[in-house]
Amino acid sequence: MTLSEVSTPKSPIESIRVPITRVRGERASLEDYVTIEEPLELRIAYHGRSDVEPVSISVTMRTPGSDFELVTGFLFAEGIIKSSDDIHRLSWSDEPSLDKDLQNVVLVELASESNFNTENLLRNLITSSSCGVCSKSSIAALQTILPVQKQSDFEISEEHLTLLPRRMREIQSQFNKTGGLHACATFDRHGNIDHIAEDVGRHNAMDKLVGHFLNQHVERLESRGVLLSGRASFELVHKATMASVPLIASIGPPSSMAIELAETRDITLAGFLSESGFNVYHASGRIRD
Amino acid sequence: MTLSEVSTPKSPIESIRVPITRVRGERASLEDYVTIEEPLELRIAYHGRSDVEPVSISVTMRTPGSDFELVTGFLFAEGIIKSSDDIHRLSWSDEPSLDKDLQNVVLVELASESNFNTENLLRNLITSSSCGVCSKSSIAALQTILPVQKQSDFEISEEHLTLLPRRMREIQSQFNKTGGLHACATFDRHGNIDHIAEDVGRHNAMDKLVGHFLNQHVERLESRGVLLSGRASFELVHKATMASVPLIASIGPPSSMAIELAETRDITLAGFLSESGFNVYHASGRIRD
Repeated sequence: MTLSEVSTPKSPIESIRVPITRVRGERASLEDYVTIEEPLELRIAYHGRSDVEPVSISVTMRTPGSDFELVTGFLFAEGIIKSSDDIHRLSWSDEPSLDKDLQNVVLVELASESNFNTENLLRNLITSSSCGVCSKSSIAALQTILPVQKQSDFEISEEHLTLLPRRMREIQSQFNKTGGLHACATFDRHGNIDHIAEDVGRHNAMDKLVGHFLNQHVERLESRGVLLSGRASFELVHKATMASVPLIASIGPPSSMAIELAETRDITLAGFLSESGFNVYHASGRIRD
Repeated sequence: MTLSEVSTPKSPIESIRVPITRVRGERASLEDYVTIEEPLELRIAYHGRSDVEPVSISVTMRTPGSDFELVTGFLFAEGIIKSSDDIHRLSWSDEPSLDKDLQNVVLVELASESNFNTENLLRNLITSSSCGVCSKSSIAALQTILPVQKQSDFEISEEHLTLLPRRMREIQSQFNKTGGLHACATFDRHGNIDHIAEDVGRHNAMDKLVGHFLNQHVERLESRGVLLSGRASFELVHKATMASVPLIASIGPPSSMAIELAETRDITLAGFLSESGFNVYHASGRIRD
């Protein structure tokens, strides 16, 4: 894959200062940082097929920064690419907006047309994560795009697990002035966080996290766990499952369907993670006393 | 509008009990409640046009309960209906799933074809909330479907506003055993909460809230504020704007684009709301000392 260098944004802009009225008994006019939320449009084309018009397949509201990782992770979660090799080139296809120096339209040139055709694409995007009948059949439908399941010997101790929320908060506080971002992070069996991704949308944070590894040609995160700053929804567990993650821990609670999917794929799912403990919803064996 | 009575679900099922391992120093096997997350598919047909096959327009992951309100609110936010009169009939088009007594496919029979055609629908759904170029042009594009703006004389005192988070938590704790649900609530100028809607997805909670009023033939919430249990994203402010809400208060922070839209429509936007105070990002005049 070629990341179009000329058009990579200069620096990610995650927050801006805005005028606010702070009310704490007294009223004060001052400035504060808020998280930037901007649309990101994704257009798909094929390498060597300049005769085919790029097709817009999605618009997501996201926090600018790590946008190419977001796009790569999204295409992977949707089953459109199997690795970053399936992408010929990523580039910006719009001019930066005048007032903000932001770019919001990414053009993906897929290496070949073999993976799918654009006619079915919009339909696939709507139905891939849920078939609309019930959780059971949705999960069954998902099996067709999930990666081959292999035994993972990943383990972590209770002690290392319960230290993770504080570690993530420390890393987040270095970068994030607004308190308004979801985070997803990978960690190893010693409880070391090796990558963290943030976004206003938690699904975007997960796409950025997985996309980061894809862009380093790592498709299977079998030797890492994933930490979620919020709740474990079906969508997040789905994305982690696509990346072969063996253990998911969340600060918030999981949903019923997140648990169902974790059971189906024998993923360890821990929720309400804090310094004082956690709940395990499936496969507690990967967490040692 | 006719709500199909025979097929209304018997009672909303928001949570189920699952076996968990609780780790707090010791390990204990017990049961705990988790929030139900199930897909909801939305199919559109037209009254008197049984020759036209219903078209599936969206699948959302939601917490079962108030599903017809969710659908009505969603169609309203997307600009597909202007009032509940544009819906001829809402009904379930699937059998309850065997193990859970849940239904997940809603059939909407629109009163007429005049509002839109199904060919453009999928494209519209993707582009209506954000045009993919930048926040400014997205908001400009949105103006075409936003309701006529009228002066609102809604006001609330600081005291009443700061009491709202506790009131919402009290109401939520009566119904919700899991701690896993987002909430949106309407309140009057005396700080009384008159309706609350919950869901695993915050956009669904807002659709349920607005849909509740639409089903009572209230299209403009000009004399109410809306309280959000989490952050104020662009999508939530968009949905509130469609319902002519003059004041939005959130427990969490707003995003940059939420503020931009509030400014464009002169909506009061308060964030970080707690008992000790709040920040106002636009139009603080509606909040009295």
